Amino acid sequence: MERGLKIGMVGYKFMGKAHSYAYRALPIIFPNYPAPVMQIICGRNPLDLEEARTNWDWRLATTDWNDVVQRDDVDVVDICTPTDTHEAIAVAAMEQGKHVFCEKPLGLSESAARHMERVAQLTGVTHMIGFNYRFAPAVLLAKRLVEQQRLGRIYHFRAQFLQDWIVDPDFPLVWRLDRTIAGSGALGDLGSHLIDLAHFLIGDIASVTGVSKTFVSQRPLASKMAGLGGQSESSQQKGPVTVDDATVFLVQFVNGALGTFEATRFALGHRSTNFFEINGSAGSVRFDFERMNELSVYFQDDADDVQGFRRVLVTDPPHPYGGRWWPAGHGLGYDHTLVHELAEFVSAIEEGRSAHPNFTDGVKCQVVMEAVETSCQTGRWVTVDYGLSGE
Amino acid sequence: MERGLKIGMVGYKFMGKAHSYAYRALPIIFPNYPAPVMQIICGRNPLDLEEARTNWDWRLATTDWNDVVQRDDVDVVDICTPTDTHEAIAVAAMEQGKHVFCEKPLGLSESAARHMERVAQLTGVTHMIGFNYRFAPAVLLAKRLVEQQRLGRIYHFRAQFLQDWIVDPDFPLVWRLDRTIAGSGALGDLGSHLIDLAHFLIGDIASVTGVSKTFVSQRPLASKMAGLGGQSESSQQKGPVTVDDATVFLVQFVNGALGTFEATRFALGHRSTNFFEINGSAGSVRFDFERMNELSVYFQDDADDVQGFRRVLVTDPPHPYGGRWWPAGHGLGYDHTLVHELAEFVSAIEEGRSAHPNFTDGVKCQVVMEAVETSCQTGRWVTVDYGLSGE
Amino acid sequence: MERGLKIGMVGYKFMGKAHSYAYRALPIIFPNYPAPVMQIICGRNPLDLEEARTNWDWRLATTDWNDVVQRDDVDVVDICTPTDTHEAIAVAAMEQGKHVFCEKPLGLSESAARHMERVAQLTGVTHMIGFNYRFAPAVLLAKRLVEQQRLGRIYHFRAQFLQDWIVDPDFPLVWRLDRTIAGSGALGDLGSHLIDLAHFLIGDIASVTGVSKTFVSQRPLASKMAGLGGQSESSQQKGPVTVDDATVFLVQFVNGALGTFEATRFALGHRSTNFFEINGSAGSVRFDFERMNELSVYFQDDADDVQGFRRVLVTDPPHPYGGRWWPAGHGLGYDHTLVHELAEFVSAIEEGRSAHPNFTDGVKCQVVMEAVETSCQTGRWVTVDYGLSGE
Amino acid sequence: MERGLKIGMVGYKFMGKAHSYAYRALPIIFPNYPAPVMQIICGRNPLDLEEARTNWDWRLATTDWNDVVQRDDVDVVDICTPTDTHEAIAVAAMEQGKHVFCEKPLGLSESAARHMERVAQLTGVTHMIGFNYRFAPAVLLAKRLVEQQRLGRIYHFRAQFLQDWIVDPDFPLVWRLDRTIAGSGALGDLGSHLIDLAHFLIGDIASVTGVSKTFVSQRPLASKMAGLGGQSESSQQKGPVTVDDATVFLVQFVNGALGTFEATRFALGHRSTNFFEINGSAGSVRFDFERMNELSVYFQDDADDVQGFRRVLVTDPPHPYGGRWWPAGHGLGYDHTLVHELAEFVSAIEEGRSAHPNFTDGVKCQVVMEAVETSCQTGRWVTVDYGLSGE
Repeated sequence: MERGLKIGMVGYKFMGKAHSYAYRALPIIFPNYPAPVMQIICGRNPLDLEEARTNWDWRLATTDWNDVVQRDDVDVVDICTPTDTHEAIAVAAMEQGKHVFCEKPLGLSESAARHMERVAQLTGVTHMIGFNYRFAPAVLLAKRLVEQQRLGRIYHFRAQFLQDWIVDPDFPLVWRLDRTIAGSGALGDLGSHLIDLAHFLIGDIASVTGVSKTFVSQRPLASKMAGLGGQSESSQQKGPVTVDDATVFLVQFVNGALGTFEATRFALGHRSTNFFEINGSAGSVRFDFERMNELSVYFQDDADDVQGFRRVLVTDPPHPYGGRWWPAGHGLGYDHTLVHELAEFVSAIEEGRSAHPNFTDGVKCQVVMEAVETSCQTGRWVTVDYGLSGE
Repeated sequence: MERGLKIGMVGYKFMGKAHSYAYRALPIIFPNYPAPVMQIICGRNPLDLEEARTNWDWRLATTDWNDVVQRDDVDVVDICTPTDTHEAIAVAAMEQGKHVFCEKPLGLSESAARHMERVAQLTGVTHMIGFNYRFAPAVLLAKRLVEQQRLGRIYHFRAQFLQDWIVDPDFPLVWRLDRTIAGSGALGDLGSHLIDLAHFLIGDIASVTGVSKTFVSQRPLASKMAGLGGQSESSQQKGPVTVDDATVFLVQFVNGALGTFEATRFALGHRSTNFFEINGSAGSVRFDFERMNELSVYFQDDADDVQGFRRVLVTDPPHPYGGRWWPAGHGLGYDHTLVHELAEFVSAIEEGRSAHPNFTDGVKCQVVMEAVETSCQTGRWVTVDYGLSGE
Repeated sequence: MERGLKIGMVGYKFMGKAHSYAYRALPIIFPNYPAPVMQIICGRNPLDLEEARTNWDWRLATTDWNDVVQRDDVDVVDICTPTDTHEAIAVAAMEQGKHVFCEKPLGLSESAARHMERVAQLTGVTHMIGFNYRFAPAVLLAKRLVEQQRLGRIYHFRAQFLQDWIVDPDFPLVWRLDRTIAGSGALGDLGSHLIDLAHFLIGDIASVTGVSKTFVSQRPLASKMAGLGGQSESSQQKGPVTVDDATVFLVQFVNGALGTFEATRFALGHRSTNFFEINGSAGSVRFDFERMNELSVYFQDDADDVQGFRRVLVTDPPHPYGGRWWPAGHGLGYDHTLVHELAEFVSAIEEGRSAHPNFTDGVKCQVVMEAVETSCQTGRWVTVDYGLSGE
Repeated sequence: MERGLKIGMVGYKFMGKAHSYAYRALPIIFPNYPAPVMQIICGRNPLDLEEARTNWDWRLATTDWNDVVQRDDVDVVDICTPTDTHEAIAVAAMEQGKHVFCEKPLGLSESAARHMERVAQLTGVTHMIGFNYRFAPAVLLAKRLVEQQRLGRIYHFRAQFLQDWIVDPDFPLVWRLDRTIAGSGALGDLGSHLIDLAHFLIGDIASVTGVSKTFVSQRPLASKMAGLGGQSESSQQKGPVTVDDATVFLVQFVNGALGTFEATRFALGHRSTNFFEINGSAGSVRFDFERMNELSVYFQDDADDVQGFRRVLVTDPPHPYGGRWWPAGHGLGYDHTLVHELAEFVSAIEEGRSAHPNFTDGVKCQVVMEAVETSCQTGRWVTVDYGLSGE
């Protein structure tokens, strides 16, 4: 008799593949819970879908997501599709009593996100959002240092998510550059991660002001669309880019700290620099996802002739997830953050507790994103009102 | 018969010592012009002053700066005093026909700076401001790459000047924390350098918005004041800090680039991180003054399997000032930027040409600083109006 | 009807877990061949074994490795046990016609290794040795640059494998410190990887001279033995350490290059620094496994003012294994080298070709190791004689 | 009445310029002793010499070094010439009662060095050798950590001096490539520094074994010779290179530590990497002269979740020479090591004490160098016998 949770996954490109990979890793690294069952995978192109099903070892496949959310043999719906479809799938799934994991950003808009969160609260299912960077051991070590007051009072948070995949003006107009599908550009795709990390590490945001730019306003239409990392093809015709290429903003946190944020797809040389630094009254930390196994840590109370940022390789047994993986010094990769993330989701369901980060965190992120967008339009500081009773 | 320019220097603490050091180095590294003569040094404390005069080998000393600006045996006045004294000394010196070098920021206010610049134009003397970071070879290499279009169209400029010398709330209320003497805090001391580098490397600024914080609002009064790097002493009594501990701001450049700026004295672990990065359509550069002999350089047209930031050690003969100093790989230090800076000043006078950066650059910096301060007060974007006809 | 190769794995601690993990990842990342079937796992402790079998999803378990090598439903034997057992298991398996993957070093001695290699040649099975670092994309990029003559004639190879897990003199006498089980210490465990990388990247070795040290000669006996990365327990009694704590040696390559090698478990701060650098007449590369997603690359023909080591993040589509995993900038971890390694093994079997590195490479490594040991005893340079006809 | 020591300097190319620079800096940074007087400079080419005299502000010039050593108005002879001239000048100067500073290596051979040291002992003058890297603040901090037992028992010392200025086979046959003038190549020029640092930081050497290579055996003759860093010119004719391009060697220290040394001029991308690392039972340090203001420091007793190499910027007041120069975070350059070095020399003379490092250190270095050369010829370990009674 199978005891594992039965997963139905919608989407099968970059994130679908990555989640499949993580589900297969789970029982080896987290044997404390029954291995999830990869029940059904859903996508629109039947041929590609069947190939994914076979290779990734899903039992069933379907081209209709309604089928996934309504099946009795599915406990969990995992949403790996473009942003515009999140709300409908998640709401339907939750109304069927399914636990839901949803990729970020939560919805196309703040109202969509709030809707999803309300349904989550009403239905009582376990819900989670894919802010995977929280699950890098180095980020969790930073969180520990903050929580244990080892950095003291926080003064500064500076965060950058820098990529360079669309600097070429002939790169085609893929769905991530279309506001009706993606909601926003660098802000929603990259800035959302920074905002979530800020919430996670520093706390609530009081107000924001920012500015957005679309440096390349027209691009060739995509004749064939691929997932992130794949090769999309360009056609001769051009169309307008309707999202931001870059958004930068300043933040005042409720606790008095100052934040600077930068999300851009126009930073040549940065394939995926997800960077933050925290400066407190007792110490500082620095993180760069391109060196995800390291956290730079500074303590002011070190002996006065040997003060300096320590390069901590976060692979020792005392570190977050330390001991679960390989011997010290044997680093992890991007996909390991997903293994940790799905382990949190699965264990929360098994233990009947809330998962973190969840749809509430998704709403909070979306609220800040919309405040940033408003400030970009008005040129003024915008007060952040999360409007969440349950916090 | 002595042919070198006769220098009168006002101020003898951190900057005074550093300038003395640089004057002595000049004839060895820049033998193309007559060695400047260290004629007279001026300061308020006669005992300390005489010690400085002897050790640093100045011919004469005086406690009255009026004496310096009026002497016939002085060609050049070099102002190394706190900001509140710059205007009076510089104007008096220029009116006496002296060439003037002035430390940054130019004046206590935009109007003071404009006054100084007007007098400079009227008197026709050679004038220069101490934005020394322009003279780091790595910064000059960045400038070269921008000018030669090797980075393409510029999209981003992100700049940080991070220090940590006043994080301790018991650090005393030295003059740099007093608005009436210093003009402003982190913005004027650190941000001014960033703004100048932005002008130098990217171009004119269209508008700004920012926010300032004073994290520690009361500090012990200083019973004994020392120069930067010295040990000031605290008394029991406290007084208010009247300048910003940190100022962060966003910038829109005239050429369409986005800028993020952060100046703070509350970033533990950063003794003096003067950092900037430029992202263009063809490449990127990164600089950190704590590793001042290096420039990180990325080119998009590198072969597709070996793209990455190069760590260029800027000590080769083809580099700015390459060949003047030591063999390749033998780095320079902070004071060498001052040697370069004073070499520019001396050679400009000898050649009868304008020096760079000069009081016009000082005014431009001050205009942006005041725009930032205005935006900090109003919470809105402020348009930058340099109001300079001669540009 | 199942088409995948049926695997029988002997050993279930650090390497057994890592291999299990990699087998599960294979069909997702390398769907071009049928997914291997995790048929049977073998270990000595029945309780621990059953736990491993369940969690890692092996079909069967046995405590007798003879059972594994003799079963008809096993195509491949994967040997993850301590060194002293390699020869017997591998030979028996090959004689049964099984393809064999064996962890490194190949055998307890050169003669054991040669025996294994002879049997491999006679039986015609596919054989491979676990020099996994060859499969880091950055190492493969280094290999490509060497092969394509992009580094020119090679002058220097310097290699270090630095760990620190036994610096504490109270760390117990685990099997890796016992010559009768492990063969040698730092030399066999760490130096063997460096020697293989040297063979892979530079070529054959002509002669060696070296010196070994055992810094801590007596250690507490281990009352409970764990795998690498686990927690072994110490007893009160002490016993002699019979392997080297550190071995350093010089190498003259057949092609005229000079090599310096250092393998140690006494380098505090280095959890697992597997470092090498190659200097050629046209360029240089540097690699450090602690930053395994990066290769530092220098080319002498770069423009003369921007020469410097490039930090290449080896995650782009043109890079080795590029495009198989995640988008550019999303790094890999230690276990991904094992996925690549097992993909090579599985595809070699499926294609009926030799795998690389194989037992011949294992012998070559062992020959150099024994030459180093001889030189440590005699204090003289020792000529390396691989004695392999088939090369 | 002048109180400073009167200097007579022989040699006026790279080192002569650097020493001149340092003498001029001395009174500003080390005002505790009377400023040395730059009395007379000596060189062979009268025109170039007069230019140097004027620019660097020496009072007198002469083309005959005998004149320098015999003058009454010279207290100190500073020898900055090629190695083959050291012995004659130094001995003559000491016999005239002059204090002598000599660039490294001390002499063309061990016997020359021993001769110089004997004369130094007999005459009782103050003597010093130009191992300037001892005077980098980061190196002195490493020394402090070793002496204060903060690294514990030392296990490993690995040292590399990597340059790349003669990789081009068309680079001309300058004097540094001629054994009769330079004594040896990479070993004497670069390895000597490493050996001295080993003596300084770790202690006496028991035995060595090594190997040398001359990768490019014939080069164009130099038609015009320049100092290091200058542009020498090539002629059509070729001549043999009579020194080593690279020498690597292993070392056993008296205290049981293992050393690996590498000196090469064939490491592309390394303009002047003077690197060492020390691993002890309590901690480790790493230094790279290309980042000379930094020392990487690791302590095993750091809290178990924040262990890692600290990047210590060695510019704080508690650091060696801290407080003498600029504020924290304002780095030093190559020439500052010379200022420190000459400050040691001048203050030793003024205080009537021995200077360090001195000719005894020079002899010890030369003894090790000759042992390395012997081992390169014999292929065996060579015991180091310093043969110095006075230690």
